Amino acid sequence: MGAADTDLANAIRALSMDAVEAANSGHPGMPMGMADVATVLFTRYLKFDPADPKWPDRDRFVLSAGHGSMLMYSLLYLTGYEAPTIDEIRNFRQFGSPCAGHPENFELAGVECTTGPLGQGLAMAVGMATAERHLNAVFDDALVDHRTWVIAGDGCLMEGINHEAVGLAGHLGLGRLNVLWDDNRITIDGAVSLSSSEDIPARYAASGWHTAECDGHDVADIARAIEEAITDPRPSLIRCRTIIGKGAPNKQGTSKTHGSALGKDEVAAARETLGWSSAPFEIPDDIRATWLDFGKRGASVHADWAERLAAHADGAEFTRRMVGNVALDDATGWAFAQWDKVPASVATRKASEFALAGLTAAMPELIGGSADLTGSNLTKTPSLTTLSADDYAGRYINYGIREFGMAAAMNGMALHGGVIPFGGTFLVFSDYARPAIRLSALQQARVIYVMTHDSIGVGEDGPTHQPIEHVMSLRMIPNLDVYRPCDAVETAECWALAVAKQDGPGLLALSRQNLPLLRETGDMLSARGAYRLRAAKAARQVVLIASGSEVSIAVETAEALEAQGIGADVVSMPCWSRFDAQDAEYRADVLPADVLKVSIEAGTTLGWERYTGDGLRIGIDSFGASGPAGDLYTHFGLTADAIAPKIINKLKN
Amino acid sequence: MGAADTDLANAIRALSMDAVEAANSGHPGMPMGMADVATVLFTRYLKFDPADPKWPDRDRFVLSAGHGSMLMYSLLYLTGYEAPTIDEIRNFRQFGSPCAGHPENFELAGVECTTGPLGQGLAMAVGMATAERHLNAVFDDALVDHRTWVIAGDGCLMEGINHEAVGLAGHLGLGRLNVLWDDNRITIDGAVSLSSSEDIPARYAASGWHTAECDGHDVADIARAIEEAITDPRPSLIRCRTIIGKGAPNKQGTSKTHGSALGKDEVAAARETLGWSSAPFEIPDDIRATWLDFGKRGASVHADWAERLAAHADGAEFTRRMVGNVALDDATGWAFAQWDKVPASVATRKASEFALAGLTAAMPELIGGSADLTGSNLTKTPSLTTLSADDYAGRYINYGIREFGMAAAMNGMALHGGVIPFGGTFLVFSDYARPAIRLSALQQARVIYVMTHDSIGVGEDGPTHQPIEHVMSLRMIPNLDVYRPCDAVETAECWALAVAKQDGPGLLALSRQNLPLLRETGDMLSARGAYRLRAAKAARQVVLIASGSEVSIAVETAEALEAQGIGADVVSMPCWSRFDAQDAEYRADVLPADVLKVSIEAGTTLGWERYTGDGLRIGIDSFGASGPAGDLYTHFGLTADAIAPKIINKLKN
Repeated sequence: MGAADTDLANAIRALSMDAVEAANSGHPGMPMGMADVATVLFTRYLKFDPADPKWPDRDRFVLSAGHGSMLMYSLLYLTGYEAPTIDEIRNFRQFGSPCAGHPENFELAGVECTTGPLGQGLAMAVGMATAERHLNAVFDDALVDHRTWVIAGDGCLMEGINHEAVGLAGHLGLGRLNVLWDDNRITIDGAVSLSSSEDIPARYAASGWHTAECDGHDVADIARAIEEAITDPRPSLIRCRTIIGKGAPNKQGTSKTHGSALGKDEVAAARETLGWSSAPFEIPDDIRATWLDFGKRGASVHADWAERLAAHADGAEFTRRMVGNVALDDATGWAFAQWDKVPASVATRKASEFALAGLTAAMPELIGGSADLTGSNLTKTPSLTTLSADDYAGRYINYGIREFGMAAAMNGMALHGGVIPFGGTFLVFSDYARPAIRLSALQQARVIYVMTHDSIGVGEDGPTHQPIEHVMSLRMIPNLDVYRPCDAVETAECWALAVAKQDGPGLLALSRQNLPLLRETGDMLSARGAYRLRAAKAARQVVLIASGSEVSIAVETAEALEAQGIGADVVSMPCWSRFDAQDAEYRADVLPADVLKVSIEAGTTLGWERYTGDGLRIGIDSFGASGPAGDLYTHFGLTADAIAPKIINKLKN
Repeated sequence: MGAADTDLANAIRALSMDAVEAANSGHPGMPMGMADVATVLFTRYLKFDPADPKWPDRDRFVLSAGHGSMLMYSLLYLTGYEAPTIDEIRNFRQFGSPCAGHPENFELAGVECTTGPLGQGLAMAVGMATAERHLNAVFDDALVDHRTWVIAGDGCLMEGINHEAVGLAGHLGLGRLNVLWDDNRITIDGAVSLSSSEDIPARYAASGWHTAECDGHDVADIARAIEEAITDPRPSLIRCRTIIGKGAPNKQGTSKTHGSALGKDEVAAARETLGWSSAPFEIPDDIRATWLDFGKRGASVHADWAERLAAHADGAEFTRRMVGNVALDDATGWAFAQWDKVPASVATRKASEFALAGLTAAMPELIGGSADLTGSNLTKTPSLTTLSADDYAGRYINYGIREFGMAAAMNGMALHGGVIPFGGTFLVFSDYARPAIRLSALQQARVIYVMTHDSIGVGEDGPTHQPIEHVMSLRMIPNLDVYRPCDAVETAECWALAVAKQDGPGLLALSRQNLPLLRETGDMLSARGAYRLRAAKAARQVVLIASGSEVSIAVETAEALEAQGIGADVVSMPCWSRFDAQDAEYRADVLPADVLKVSIEAGTTLGWERYTGDGLRIGIDSFGASGPAGDLYTHFGLTADAIAPKIINKLKN
């Protein structure tokens, strides 16, 4: 079929070095080193259709070593995706080009996920491969029958998350996950041997992986290793021995090719070495044609699949899940389906369990889990059986003590589509998962984080387990909706809002301790982000703003103030980002300019100035302490008895 | 010697179950399961002297599975440490007791580090063992000759950071690090097999560790395995096969003993099973006496060591390093030692390199490193040679692509004493290290984080590499000083401040791009956290507050305003926590109440309301973008041309 493999690979090399040269910024070493491996994968094994990048049964390809983004852009262009165009590749790394420094799923349809933060691509692929097996078990081979491929570098394998991802994939027996490891023995600082003495395949084997290896520049050997991986029922690591920057005669094999342009002279020398006489960004016709032919190979497979879908008894349900729309009204109904069972005084984590019971019963696409805190996070409902290597149709994943791996896997599941993942840990351990939570937001992935034990209400476990700065610092991540509901009604509402938001993650911060019911059901007030929960009875002199477990304290404080003739509104603010999105009139009504505003939250006060102005901020700006929760609330001054006098004092001055 | 091993171990079991029972909160399973192993370790191998918990040449013992804190408290009490007392143990987990839910180094002298967040104890131990080998190489066996011991659970081993810690320890050949793995096959959710299928010893072996195993309830077998570990030159993992909650006849071996009190009946049954007839918190005299005798064993070894120290030619220098005082004036002088080489326009990461060159030349206790970004972080100075298994006297660690492992190891080094660690990565990857940064702050450990590429100034690498929320969210961690210097002068000042602060970490956020020199040397203005850099020329109508790379933009904006007759102060604010600690008068002088205040920072605006009130906040509340830095500053409106009109408009309204 047309041009030789070497020519096809050299097209990747040429585009990559030329684009990096034009930008004078980027990473030529990886695309040039992995060009042969990628060529074998894309021309012989990968199932894809450039005409429909979102074809549900396509293979997923993840460039975990995201700095080698030109490999991705070259492949998309060469195989005939609508984007990127050659002009967009010419503008690699320029403002406005979809060919960004690192691959971004929201810029290019052929990019499955956003990579660059090392280790996470491979960990997301674990989630994709899990979603594939799950949907295969729920539907069948006719509709779901694809593989997940990863190109990963030494950095991806050295990061801690790799251990979590590898352990999860091995335990779940994800045989359709194949990782091509770019073993070029080079990191930014120099030789890998500067910082690592690990036998990587032995480590993977210890977690139940199949391992193979090949000469990453020998097409037949690459194909042999890939065949082995496909045949083996375990997840596979293929060690591809490569030369970083291969083709650049003076710099290849060194860290000089890793992260900067080769330079004019070396690019010219590489052209010579590769026998590549075309001008920059020009691909000889026969090579271009051959690549495009390979790109068309998937069309008939895709068409066959479309026929099967059309004829399938569960085709409509499959499509519904893959489209993923959830109407807010439906979600709200399901979240309140078990309402009659909810006690009057209940921890919001327990209220969450009731909401989830309704949602998981109605929504088969919900897949839950916990990082080994199931009984604390209360994330497992009667609808959920365990998803395991023995039963991929299950809908509950025992993620183990792997918060970061869980979050990244959930990103992969959400991006795969067909499922909506949620997973729990303690809020304080959101720090462990934070890099993946950020990527949920950046990637616009619907992942729902169930973060319980959300304050000093944790009690005796002490400061290592008590979130102080977490809620506020999570609010700062763009496109992440942080919910901190105050009671069972708000908890159900926030669940519905999170489930219905398709283009971004939601994080629920939930209490360990019981909280009183403060709201009537009915209006979906949490959608506004904040609202007046109690209106002042006496003439209003204060607005108390609180979230979560402190709203009931605000209500008590208001009562104490009213008893002294001081009118006090109580505003419950379960979600800052939603409130900030309301119109100015609504915001001014809830938080009027001319009244003393006081925030109450069992966490850092930094940030609350946004709403209190020069009012009062009641919170905790030190680490917590070990003791019963009630003692801690008293110690930190988070009681109506402590707060009301401060407000009265402020009003006097 | 006195009471039998079993009785000694049962004293731990009894104290642990009784304390958890009294608190009705805590984790009896681990202390009861590991009581035999801990007894063997503390009575036969651990080098310690309860009379001087800070003896520099003591063995370090880290309870990585920190939830089993009663094991630690029992051992400290039984071996005769001044604290905890039996009354403090009676008050386990009560407010004010040093016997907190998880072991805290700032509460009890015998606790080497604060554990509970899983995986980090073992990773800190890697740092301790590194510090030991380094100081041994710099001094000699006469002064430094101790081991680091860890008790770790399945959770510690499953966390991603374990991979980084194991890789680092194996690579550095830390043969004096011995990890006792409590292999009880139980996690909170149930059997380990629910979530893991890993051959853990095989994984450790793949990273160059020695592995051994023993019956964790057979004293002779435990001792045999420990002897093996001591003899082997590699770091050792000892798999201790144990029964969680051993001694509780109906619950042992199950997750029911993990995280809650056994209950009155089961405690009574355990007393029966163990043959333990004493009342709660009472230890039979012979057992108490035997334990105390073991506690006294270290005194003579300690005395011999003290004699060697007194006679040693480098004894004074050793003691100086272990004490760790650094005078701010000295540090400032060293940080400016290379001042004459600093260019007028320089990136603060480059200015940092100059400051470090002076500091590392003057301070042999500084140990640097980078998570594989040495050439970007500019953390390696001419004084620093590589610390490796072949040369522990080196002072630069190639941490590899292990941000979290680096941070935790630095915590361990700082807590070990004798060294002051600093390490670099990109600021955006502070997220990867965040759980350890938090522990630096909680543990009051002098660790210095060198976080470069601190804004959209990163440019083409795009949103995955551009910190937006990071600076602000780090400012929220209590006891962490976040420095964002605006030029070379402030950079040197901030370095001096960080080095001289003994009881907490510092984090420097440094620019990739060149910045103009805005300051004179001389007064140590950064110590105030913020100060007036430029005073208004015309009548003051605005105070511009900025940090880091945006201070020069603030200066340009002030000039644009002054050109229109609008007086504008420029306040540089390199460190919020230091500014907040100034007296009210100083703060009011810098940020007067009656003037429009405008913040300018290339990051989230949430939080700046603290200083601007209802003024203006210029920043970025979305993710960044890929493109040249200059284009991005223009796109996000962070130029004097874009900012000045907004201010003028605000002044008009």
